[in-house]
Amino acid sequence: MKRSVFFISDGTGITAEALGNALLTQFEGIEFERNVLPYIDTIEKAQTTAERINKAFITDGQKPIIFDTVVDKEIRSVIRTCNGFPIDIFETFLSPLERELGHQSSYTVGTSHSITEEDTYKSRIDAVHFALDNDDGIRTKNFRDADIILIGVSRCGKTPTCIYMALQYGLCAANYPITEEDMRDGMITLPKFLKENQHKLFGLTINAENLSNIRNERRANSRYSSLAQCEMEVDSVEELFIKEGIPHINSTFFSIEEISARILNITGIERKN
Amino acid sequence: MKRSVFFISDGTGITAEALGNALLTQFEGIEFERNVLPYIDTIEKAQTTAERINKAFITDGQKPIIFDTVVDKEIRSVIRTCNGFPIDIFETFLSPLERELGHQSSYTVGTSHSITEEDTYKSRIDAVHFALDNDDGIRTKNFRDADIILIGVSRCGKTPTCIYMALQYGLCAANYPITEEDMRDGMITLPKFLKENQHKLFGLTINAENLSNIRNERRANSRYSSLAQCEMEVDSVEELFIKEGIPHINSTFFSIEEISARILNITGIERKN
Repeated sequence: MKRSVFFISDGTGITAEALGNALLTQFEGIEFERNVLPYIDTIEKAQTTAERINKAFITDGQKPIIFDTVVDKEIRSVIRTCNGFPIDIFETFLSPLERELGHQSSYTVGTSHSITEEDTYKSRIDAVHFALDNDDGIRTKNFRDADIILIGVSRCGKTPTCIYMALQYGLCAANYPITEEDMRDGMITLPKFLKENQHKLFGLTINAENLSNIRNERRANSRYSSLAQCEMEVDSVEELFIKEGIPHINSTFFSIEEISARILNITGIERKN
Repeated sequence: MKRSVFFISDGTGITAEALGNALLTQFEGIEFERNVLPYIDTIEKAQTTAERINKAFITDGQKPIIFDTVVDKEIRSVIRTCNGFPIDIFETFLSPLERELGHQSSYTVGTSHSITEEDTYKSRIDAVHFALDNDDGIRTKNFRDADIILIGVSRCGKTPTCIYMALQYGLCAANYPITEEDMRDGMITLPKFLKENQHKLFGLTINAENLSNIRNERRANSRYSSLAQCEMEVDSVEELFIKEGIPHINSTFFSIEEISARILNITGIERKN
């Protein structure tokens, strides 16, 4: 039995979703049926929305949970006529914040803002392009412009972590895959373009079995994805991290959000937004 | 004069930040000095944090705003001894939600969760890899596996939008840049691999002047970035969108978050997380 949830906004709905999901993920055992309804900006749309919520109430036999960030008071009051359970984060907290800051909020004024801030927006987009242009070691001459360079074996999570750090923090994150080509006599030697930027290096490692599973999805039953090969690569890379004093974490049980937060925490690199 | 803000968590701090920023962005005229303090998971770290907040209070002459999602009650009480203005979203809303859902939250139980959900995590990471592998028309044979294919002139915002839709919605988003090579007699003809997937196409366009500025940052004073060239390309592409009935939006004044939300709203494509 799923519980219906509605995220309602007269804009993109991104803020209502971010706020609501942060609360909902604290309820583990419950399955939620999420409905995101952006651009509810007319009375007609509000009426349709209220009807939809009422239908869910009848079908589920339980009040749908409602997170809304609708600014227009008339539209809100139409939505509030329905049989739902509203969680009103803005109304609850903006008044005390307004008093403390001595300043009216855009929400109160009627020009609610999305969580995107213009001044940091361009740096985030530039960072995404940087991450793509400097992914997977395709280029190494830009490493001097990078804020951080992730290194590790192929498919240990470098690329999505770089993308996330670019989008979320505006950081120019490059990455370089350590392969057998970087090995001599079973030992990895840092290539010159990494050695020159050693203070920017951060290592990702991963459990060999998980790596083998991930690689098998890409190239089944290949040497590349065999457990023996994965173990050999992971061992060599971990040895390198220790030998060269490169800070590193094991990505196996962390999401890219967690890996990124930990990298900032360990390195002390400042976010750009 | 900046107002100090502290986001405090015993985990990554991502939830505290998301909640707090959604509220803070409603205060336009105020500049905030943001301090993200993740992994505050010992009494000692809590004491250091409280001291840091008190220092900010003395320097600023104003109470720092505090958003925290610390689960441990002892750690929280140490932080609460400081001279700050706490906004307690979890405490305020989780109790009513617990009553309504008839279920204790992980927060109450002491195992607070981040906003990352495991079951949708893999699809998001796969989608990021798909977006990268199918960026900028480098491959077209996977277009049949795409949920959506963005088309438009070079540097109109296709790539970061695809990346965002992958990370945020778990959608497999490909993109293809329309260039002069796709033109015959001044008219654009859809290449076969796009024609076959026409129901998945979504167009991005952009004001020619803004495009010219963006391109100039990349290749200054080139034909590629000249206003005349940008106008010609944009005109041809917009003509194509209309002729072929391809839904499209002008990206000039929207963030990638807004573009993505609008694309979902216009096409009705279902997010995968």
